[in-house]
Amino acid sequence: MIKDRSLCLENERIDDLECNGFCIIQDPSFFCFGMDAVLLSDFVTVKNRAKVVDLCTGNGIIPLLLTAKNKGEHVTGLEIQSHMADMAKRSVVLNESEKRIDIINGDVKNVRNLFKRESVDTVTCNPPYIVDGKGLKNPDEPVNIARHEILLSLEDVIEAAAYLLKPMGNFAMVHKPFRLAEIMSLMAKYRLEPKRLRMIQSDYEAEPSMVLIEASHYGKAHLKVYPALNVYDKERNYTKELLKIYGKE
Amino acid sequence: MIKDRSLCLENERIDDLECNGFCIIQDPSFFCFGMDAVLLSDFVTVKNRAKVVDLCTGNGIIPLLLTAKNKGEHVTGLEIQSHMADMAKRSVVLNESEKRIDIINGDVKNVRNLFKRESVDTVTCNPPYIVDGKGLKNPDEPVNIARHEILLSLEDVIEAAAYLLKPMGNFAMVHKPFRLAEIMSLMAKYRLEPKRLRMIQSDYEAEPSMVLIEASHYGKAHLKVYPALNVYDKERNYTKELLKIYGKE
Repeated sequence: MIKDRSLCLENERIDDLECNGFCIIQDPSFFCFGMDAVLLSDFVTVKNRAKVVDLCTGNGIIPLLLTAKNKGEHVTGLEIQSHMADMAKRSVVLNESEKRIDIINGDVKNVRNLFKRESVDTVTCNPPYIVDGKGLKNPDEPVNIARHEILLSLEDVIEAAAYLLKPMGNFAMVHKPFRLAEIMSLMAKYRLEPKRLRMIQSDYEAEPSMVLIEASHYGKAHLKVYPALNVYDKERNYTKELLKIYGKE
Repeated sequence: MIKDRSLCLENERIDDLECNGFCIIQDPSFFCFGMDAVLLSDFVTVKNRAKVVDLCTGNGIIPLLLTAKNKGEHVTGLEIQSHMADMAKRSVVLNESEKRIDIINGDVKNVRNLFKRESVDTVTCNPPYIVDGKGLKNPDEPVNIARHEILLSLEDVIEAAAYLLKPMGNFAMVHKPFRLAEIMSLMAKYRLEPKRLRMIQSDYEAEPSMVLIEASHYGKAHLKVYPALNVYDKERNYTKELLKIYGKE
């Protein structure tokens, strides 16, 4: 399906999500979605009638992928950068998904004024990975806001998820393994009990480069750790499992 | 080397540790050491002149393996069950390691009366894995004391390690992945910062069955996650890496 470019601004392009005809508007000079978003949308448990909130939604990739996969009934994406939220809104129109996706231009730290407490079944987040102050960055650049904890911390994200979730609602996040201890401690602080964990690694000999984690609000302690997901096989082809997640198997 | 059986009680046997001639006395009707102890003694970081304490030492397998590998200067093993501590002491004599290993028959919860605060470089522990009250057990049987948290909890172990360790000293433990979230939260509570983590799995497609974790007392937050260790390859032979850890490569 050829999508209508009239919804695009200059420099923006339309990328095919290769999932039930869904597309996304992206600007290569800003932050484009990566494998982490695809893996998170596959990993997260979403019940049929679930109301979902995606924090740090960026260009709306997670709400679009969840809707394309028909996971959940309604997804609200929250994004602090107005030009990214605007791009996400236009992608929702492009996919004629206005009834199933809302995009809000707002701050995760202001979640109490945007949503009711314990009103949501599932929260997702692909947050900035890098602790503020670590690594080189220009704080004005949108790509750095997406990558660094400039505008919000890991604790802000986890606190917001706990505020939003109904009891036994679930929170799924993708992050870097080197912060796993901090993630688990903060989840414990906000009564989000880690229930499922999966490491992602380039191949079976590589150190994990991402971790998928899902927690249950007020859940009982018992973590299921899955075998790590390998991106490549020994011949450096994508593994069957990765291709399946991308809908190519 | 044929070891002197005069140190053995009835039903006890001497097993070769296949590491620099070291042996261990075991009683098959009690708890015999497993792969977890071998992997932990390989995984733990021990500095040359380190003073090490091994909590829940059982038949002394960890102190014996560390000494056989020449890791650290001195190891004290602490064991609550008197007949296990006695067996461990006789293994120390059997290996002529009295100058490098002490075995104390005592309770981890009583660590304050047995050791000085912050006096140890490295603490190791292969604790009971199963939460008290879960699963079938007979609380009188020694094997259940070794497997179930009857006489001490995970928090007792972690609290004792933090009491013992010098600042920047390290604590290494082997445990079950399903308790990882609890382990990390308790480590955070006692200022033991997880620094290294490795999952152990039967093969590359299997769920991890054990987790090795090492934390630094008052350390900075940054966790290194290693590729999972596979026990078997695709042909169901032991992997080269496992054989190397067992000293057979």
